[in-house]
Amino acid sequence: MTDEKATSADHSTVKHMKWWGWGVEGVGFHHEDKPDFAPFVLKAVDVDLWTATKAQPLPFDKLDVPDSNVSPEFFAALTAAVGDDNVTSDAMDRVVHTFGKSLRDLVRVRSGKIERTPDVVVYPADEAQVQSVVDAAVAAGAVIIPFGGGSNIAGSLEPIVGETRTVVSLDLGRLNRVIEVDADSGLARIQAGALGPDLEAQLTERGWTLGHFPDSFTHSTLGGWVATRSSGMQSDKYGDIADIARGLRVVRPGGTLVIRAIPSASTGPSVREMIVGSEGRLGVITEVTVQVHRIPEKRDIYAYFFPNWATGLKAMQEISESDAAPSITRVSDARETGFSLATSKASKGMSKFLSGTVLPTLMKRKGWNLDDICLSFIGYEGGEAHAKRQKAIVDAIVKKHNGMGVGKGPGVLYDQKKFDTPYLRDFLLDMGAAGDVSETAAPWSKLAAVHDGAYAAAQGAFDKLGKVGWIMSHLSHSYHSGACLYFTFAFKFGEGDPIAEYDVVKSAIQQAFIDNGGTISHHHGVGLEHSPWLEQDISAGGVDLVKSLFASADPDGTFNPGKIVGGRLVGGRVATLIDTDAIETEEVQA
Amino acid sequence: MTDEKATSADHSTVKHMKWWGWGVEGVGFHHEDKPDFAPFVLKAVDVDLWTATKAQPLPFDKLDVPDSNVSPEFFAALTAAVGDDNVTSDAMDRVVHTFGKSLRDLVRVRSGKIERTPDVVVYPADEAQVQSVVDAAVAAGAVIIPFGGGSNIAGSLEPIVGETRTVVSLDLGRLNRVIEVDADSGLARIQAGALGPDLEAQLTERGWTLGHFPDSFTHSTLGGWVATRSSGMQSDKYGDIADIARGLRVVRPGGTLVIRAIPSASTGPSVREMIVGSEGRLGVITEVTVQVHRIPEKRDIYAYFFPNWATGLKAMQEISESDAAPSITRVSDARETGFSLATSKASKGMSKFLSGTVLPTLMKRKGWNLDDICLSFIGYEGGEAHAKRQKAIVDAIVKKHNGMGVGKGPGVLYDQKKFDTPYLRDFLLDMGAAGDVSETAAPWSKLAAVHDGAYAAAQGAFDKLGKVGWIMSHLSHSYHSGACLYFTFAFKFGEGDPIAEYDVVKSAIQQAFIDNGGTISHHHGVGLEHSPWLEQDISAGGVDLVKSLFASADPDGTFNPGKIVGGRLVGGRVATLIDTDAIETEEVQA
Repeated sequence: MTDEKATSADHSTVKHMKWWGWGVEGVGFHHEDKPDFAPFVLKAVDVDLWTATKAQPLPFDKLDVPDSNVSPEFFAALTAAVGDDNVTSDAMDRVVHTFGKSLRDLVRVRSGKIERTPDVVVYPADEAQVQSVVDAAVAAGAVIIPFGGGSNIAGSLEPIVGETRTVVSLDLGRLNRVIEVDADSGLARIQAGALGPDLEAQLTERGWTLGHFPDSFTHSTLGGWVATRSSGMQSDKYGDIADIARGLRVVRPGGTLVIRAIPSASTGPSVREMIVGSEGRLGVITEVTVQVHRIPEKRDIYAYFFPNWATGLKAMQEISESDAAPSITRVSDARETGFSLATSKASKGMSKFLSGTVLPTLMKRKGWNLDDICLSFIGYEGGEAHAKRQKAIVDAIVKKHNGMGVGKGPGVLYDQKKFDTPYLRDFLLDMGAAGDVSETAAPWSKLAAVHDGAYAAAQGAFDKLGKVGWIMSHLSHSYHSGACLYFTFAFKFGEGDPIAEYDVVKSAIQQAFIDNGGTISHHHGVGLEHSPWLEQDISAGGVDLVKSLFASADPDGTFNPGKIVGGRLVGGRVATLIDTDAIETEEVQA
Repeated sequence: MTDEKATSADHSTVKHMKWWGWGVEGVGFHHEDKPDFAPFVLKAVDVDLWTATKAQPLPFDKLDVPDSNVSPEFFAALTAAVGDDNVTSDAMDRVVHTFGKSLRDLVRVRSGKIERTPDVVVYPADEAQVQSVVDAAVAAGAVIIPFGGGSNIAGSLEPIVGETRTVVSLDLGRLNRVIEVDADSGLARIQAGALGPDLEAQLTERGWTLGHFPDSFTHSTLGGWVATRSSGMQSDKYGDIADIARGLRVVRPGGTLVIRAIPSASTGPSVREMIVGSEGRLGVITEVTVQVHRIPEKRDIYAYFFPNWATGLKAMQEISESDAAPSITRVSDARETGFSLATSKASKGMSKFLSGTVLPTLMKRKGWNLDDICLSFIGYEGGEAHAKRQKAIVDAIVKKHNGMGVGKGPGVLYDQKKFDTPYLRDFLLDMGAAGDVSETAAPWSKLAAVHDGAYAAAQGAFDKLGKVGWIMSHLSHSYHSGACLYFTFAFKFGEGDPIAEYDVVKSAIQQAFIDNGGTISHHHGVGLEHSPWLEQDISAGGVDLVKSLFASADPDGTFNPGKIVGGRLVGGRVATLIDTDAIETEEVQA
């Protein structure tokens, strides 16, 4: 079944997030119905929500947006490629396409001083138009930065400051269709610009699901997931995007690279895996053939409590070693559990459980310290009997580790709220507090050290800045040999450069990951944000191979130059960037 | 626990297969106790085993082995690196290190005319010595071909004919230890030169298994598995080697590339995946950190029969979609089932089942045609209850597809015999018949076409050659979106060039894979054998990326030049090879 629906004639239907924050205007976090939240924030980051003034974004016309350098000739060439209505160098379009949505991005865009935007934004309708844009850009000596949902938080989207060439933001938003489902193979051809909800809706219509639900789901695209090696909440079952994406189409100068959907192949080195995680540096991903699954008969998320982090961690490990194979394995540490309780509405969620007397009494009777308890969610999917059996295996392991099950209620709430965290981050930023995330993966034997190391590093950074700060964590994905730990940190901005303060904390945590055996990112990519640690992660020899590949496959640096390797955050890691690609290309080829 | 045992002082303990065939001398296939075999072979490939003369290998001293070109200076440098006893340019050592064990390799080596051998073979004791060898080779402008067990059948090991530089075969055989097991994480650091049985023995001692059992297991190494993206018989459960190998150490000029063992990472493009399947072109793999598993409580292989191939295939697909997740999914087509029956001993195995009257009567009563029946093996592993449940799910699916279970007996025999097939191939070669394999993977929706296409292609090739020929197949691995089909073909050599005849058949089958949506190899790698189809498999753009990587990462072509891309079997695909790397490097960089 091939979907031959015409794509919209112009880009008016392409959805973008608001230029100054996450999501759409009119949606936001509020704490009025969460009585524990304000006291929690006061204690955690020293921000008094009762008295703080909520910052308002600058009016857009106050922004200092650099002019576009696009030449009339090149603009005309792009127009010839995609039509009059689908090329723009309007300031708003360019600003929307300048950054992702990291804290660094929001601070910069809200400051009103934007050093470099793309010069022109194009919205091709299909792969043929993408090819025309790429070829026109190559002919004009321009730079291309592919753009999906704009949710990136690793600095993978921004033009390099100092880039003198014309920068094209190539927005894939019109390539948003599920083209075909091979029902016999459980494979779907989907255009790269499809947002999570849009592609899931098209799949659901046909009885399928992709099963890929990253936190950014609402505002991120299939192409973006592939370009950054994304993971989702149910990846324990469905695999990371590197497992899910079997076939690829990538527009490169002069033609399209095609990897057919093959379940497994020994043709190495795997080109599929070169494209996955390439962050636009090897061309423009236009289509992905992905594994899709029939919507399972049963899909439940159960909540559990553990007396402390160590037992929770140990239980997750034992679950991963067991025959249970659940779809979600998640456990929050004590701090994050406290945070979850504080952000619950008075009458719902966790509060409902712990505000009563039954559960706390039970916990105390077991000898638990309520400040140490850890909340866990485990997902079960499949046939009715299978899900039941998964749960039976897990329940036994939980019991062995002195945990207790509290049913499905909290899991339902978690499932509903799971995509809302970025709104909370924006709310805190409005109130003067920096909040951001860092995540890593490490072998089971190193997870405790990674956790404690990141905590100590964050605390050291807070101390250095003379601040009350906050860090919390959860285990979000389990594998045979280890797991992903996801950290959220926050602190109140002072009078100084907010980016410089942020860098002190973020850098300390990233370095702690490396020092304790973790990777620089389990599912957010490298971009510019994590690039400084890449050599420590994959060794100088590994970085050499990546540079070799980019230098030889894209010798002119047409495609998103400076990302992953070659670009650098300089000047105390403030928001100025230099492009060292040219130099490094010479080094490699010397 | 780190194993600090000293490695043997010299290479006398390094095991090699015999120069003229598979395995060790004194082990071979014989058919005297298999009464159905000779009639089967007569019918299948027109070879009369009762009257045919068994060819004897040439005495080694009749071989026409080219002289070594190694200079005294370079030989001295290698000796300085690894010691007097571990460098050799003896003719036997060089011949043993010239080829893998494909049919093409055996025909060539048995012909006595060997166009190019390595000039020198070195046996470093550890990674530091590997580094010294690599650096000495780079300084001397030599070529390095890493050598593990020598079981390769894709032409990945041979020096390129016409290579004027000194060719070093770097034998990893002394790097054969399990260095350390991280019991907490299920990870083991293992040296790359460890043969399958040796590493399994060291793991078993500690209560672990790798779970990787390719057909070549007895004579192949961990490093070789990684270098060719190998799969094993239980890969449905344990994963392909690309999943199993989490950490890597690769010696490159001037230093070691280190990929730490991380369960999953978003640092793309994945350098780990560049090394996996690189067939020695990016350096010398010295150590791999692999996922290991506790030996499961239960491990059974059950046999089933299906009335025909279509129902067997459909059942495998449904099993792969189910919650059963077995460790092995295998079904032979009718021809291979017939072959299995013919190679069974009179009183054992399948014959025992079908020689009686009960089973055939039962099958006939079900309306089955005994010429169409298909034998299947399904493996169950894990806890007792889990294995039982897996089997219950599978049994229901088998029943739905009109199959029948016949218990564990045949599975036990299969498990014992599984590594012996190459001996049978050699026996047939001795008797004048070419036997070889080609395997592929494709989506479920294309498997029937791939199967029928390969059969038609082989038959077309046999017709073209005017021969009675044989082809048979089984499904060997299942994935969510498809499976691996493994083909074995055979025909009687004529008076002409045996390699030219072989090429007609092999080429036809490989082309049929591509034409029907399969890949060129699911688990044998690319080498020189499959390289001609690489562009059709991964597109010109994909080949460009691979060439880009090799050209930039190894600009002098030090490491196994010509393999995967750049080398070519020329002259009607006969055994002469040219190195076109230099030319193609220029193309890429132009």
